[in-house]
Amino acid sequence: MRDFLPKEAERMRYVEQTARELAQLYGYEEVITPVVESYDLLAAKSGEEIRERMYAFNDLGGRRVALRPEFTASIARLVVTKMMYEPKPLRLFCVGSLYRYDEPQMGRFREFWQSNYELIGSSKPEADAEILILTHDLIERLGFRNHWFKIGHMGILRGILSQEGVKEEQQNQMMQLLDKKQWDEALSVAQGLGVSEKCRATMKNLFETRGKDASKILEKARENVQGYEDAIVAVENLREIVELTKQSGAKFQMLIEAGFARGLEYYTGMIFEPYVTERETAVSGGGRYDKLVELFGGESTPAVGVANGIDRLALAMKNQKISPKVPEERRVAIIPVIEELKAKAIDLSLMLRKAKISTEVEVMGRTVSRALEDADRKNVTHVVIVGPEEFKEGKVVLRNMKKREQTTVEIKNLPKQILMGKS
Amino acid sequence: MRDFLPKEAERMRYVEQTARELAQLYGYEEVITPVVESYDLLAAKSGEEIRERMYAFNDLGGRRVALRPEFTASIARLVVTKMMYEPKPLRLFCVGSLYRYDEPQMGRFREFWQSNYELIGSSKPEADAEILILTHDLIERLGFRNHWFKIGHMGILRGILSQEGVKEEQQNQMMQLLDKKQWDEALSVAQGLGVSEKCRATMKNLFETRGKDASKILEKARENVQGYEDAIVAVENLREIVELTKQSGAKFQMLIEAGFARGLEYYTGMIFEPYVTERETAVSGGGRYDKLVELFGGESTPAVGVANGIDRLALAMKNQKISPKVPEERRVAIIPVIEELKAKAIDLSLMLRKAKISTEVEVMGRTVSRALEDADRKNVTHVVIVGPEEFKEGKVVLRNMKKREQTTVEIKNLPKQILMGKS
Repeated sequence: MRDFLPKEAERMRYVEQTARELAQLYGYEEVITPVVESYDLLAAKSGEEIRERMYAFNDLGGRRVALRPEFTASIARLVVTKMMYEPKPLRLFCVGSLYRYDEPQMGRFREFWQSNYELIGSSKPEADAEILILTHDLIERLGFRNHWFKIGHMGILRGILSQEGVKEEQQNQMMQLLDKKQWDEALSVAQGLGVSEKCRATMKNLFETRGKDASKILEKARENVQGYEDAIVAVENLREIVELTKQSGAKFQMLIEAGFARGLEYYTGMIFEPYVTERETAVSGGGRYDKLVELFGGESTPAVGVANGIDRLALAMKNQKISPKVPEERRVAIIPVIEELKAKAIDLSLMLRKAKISTEVEVMGRTVSRALEDADRKNVTHVVIVGPEEFKEGKVVLRNMKKREQTTVEIKNLPKQILMGKS
Repeated sequence: MRDFLPKEAERMRYVEQTARELAQLYGYEEVITPVVESYDLLAAKSGEEIRERMYAFNDLGGRRVALRPEFTASIARLVVTKMMYEPKPLRLFCVGSLYRYDEPQMGRFREFWQSNYELIGSSKPEADAEILILTHDLIERLGFRNHWFKIGHMGILRGILSQEGVKEEQQNQMMQLLDKKQWDEALSVAQGLGVSEKCRATMKNLFETRGKDASKILEKARENVQGYEDAIVAVENLREIVELTKQSGAKFQMLIEAGFARGLEYYTGMIFEPYVTERETAVSGGGRYDKLVELFGGESTPAVGVANGIDRLALAMKNQKISPKVPEERRVAIIPVIEELKAKAIDLSLMLRKAKISTEVEVMGRTVSRALEDADRKNVTHVVIVGPEEFKEGKVVLRNMKKREQTTVEIKNLPKQILMGKS
């Protein structure tokens, strides 16, 4: 677990706020779910690896609970229990901290932050395309210029394996291996399960079917999966999604991977991961999960969503030296020259804050020169010195810290004087 | 634990964002600390009642950890370990969720949210006054009109008890009782510890020394504590803080309580709780804690801070029918008349979002009339209907849902048309 000091915290909140503004622009409404949920709920379809690494414990009432390792299960529960009768589609946004007891590694921490967008109720390719486009839009708005989306479809491999009679649990085990790029191990498992020679050859081919030319790769995938009906449907679905996304006018760089798998067990359709340069791990991850809402007791409800790593995006911004776009700001310190003017200094600070100027009052009882030194260190742009002589005439001394100039100004003109010109 | 549906979540984020803007205005820098911390750290000075109600467990590495029940201990740890050499004062802001296994009661939940402001490094009354004024400012900005601050000083009772030879642990026990307004029980404990008759009489008097006329109450308290040197110093300190706050120009309603105590063991000086009408529990709570940073291994560092209950404030806003101030917004739905225009509909949505207009695209494949019905239910202000005839001429149909009017407009004028006039 880690702390975020002011500069890092600012970047985190910037990513979060950008994600929130995007939610508003795309019509996603924010919901907040708790960090602590029932263990069984969170474990249901998260995948073996995540299950083993959950922060699970018994609460004081003896219930088995855990800290959420991801958001989607909680959102599905919320939809089933509290938004059942809302007209579909539901567009939901959420943001918060998540917990996995992973071995610490570069850019991965046991407490991490995500913003999720979930589009619930549509099985159409335009819903998948919307989630792709929205994620792309987020990454662009944050200022990343070089990024690409790895895109695949869970239905391709699962379609083949189901037709070969491989049970879901065994499929899950293979998907976990593939998520870690352990292709040979996955093929060994398949062999152990007695799948056909054709199946293994098809899978092996699929693992190599990847590239930037979407039409070509999908054409090749289509040929590969000949004879596996559900896999063919999956390839066609992926083609529709990719084409729609391309035609929409968003400028996408896509890397289609026919053998791509993700570890979360609830994915049923299109899956994707966006990457930015200089990072080997994806900054986000998403896909279609058509069975999860049903699993929690709801009606059959198709859904697609994405989880964006707020801390990962913030770290990538730092590495690529992308600064949050914040307006240039005034930062004022007010220093009373004598004790008797302390209340007046506070009074002036209230006036400046009403004019939306960030203002600190001297609270250390230091001399003017000591307080000025400190202001210098802290990027204060203006210092207001409240002395008895000037104050009697309704004036204070205003010092511009960058220009190293000071003038005596009337108190009533103070906010205007500070806001005037460049800081 | 609970979920926040969209309307409630909006109110929560509004309170959080208002608190964050205030932090910027007052020069408080945001930091983020983890939800899970060492049990010992969190237990150190939180108070018996909170210690018993912490979500504590062993993590997979066998460490005793807990979900933070409050922020101040984490901030003190952060200051000691990572901000030791920063010039004082430090002004820090944080916001997040906290956990206590309390019995559920009105407006109290096991997961709750706070925004904290901590002013670290100053022992001066102007620092205490700043925290009071800032909290007052937050409550005003949120739109509350009828609110008051209960204000006291831990040094009054502790000063008396220390002089009577009562040990800190026993004092803590009494403060817990007083926090719950169990005055008689506290007096019994004092008697059991063998304090003097004078001490009990003084305490009993102090419990009744409360009221809105600050000078009068503090005068009375001063007389009461005659003979207890540290208590006299505490009363004088409180007087200075209250007078400074009043003179600053902020319009305060104060209720001075000479026998006021708070349950957190780390408070050493001024303490306060703001109340808004219709609620019996305080919306915030704060005070001075001059020993905590030292306890965690830092230098002797005076500090004062406040924790504001985000969910409590949000709930009070709801009860008092105070709406978040959000600008009136356009909300657009785009409906393609035929399948072939789906990509174009998405393209248009990207254009509108660039103009900062919240836009949803039809993803259910519904007919125009069905999709219009749904738009009506969802407070959509404008619908854009993309039909083949109009589109060929570079036009679409724009329907104003409130006025029930529709016109054909050129696509290039669409954002302007939507933003024009009242929605």
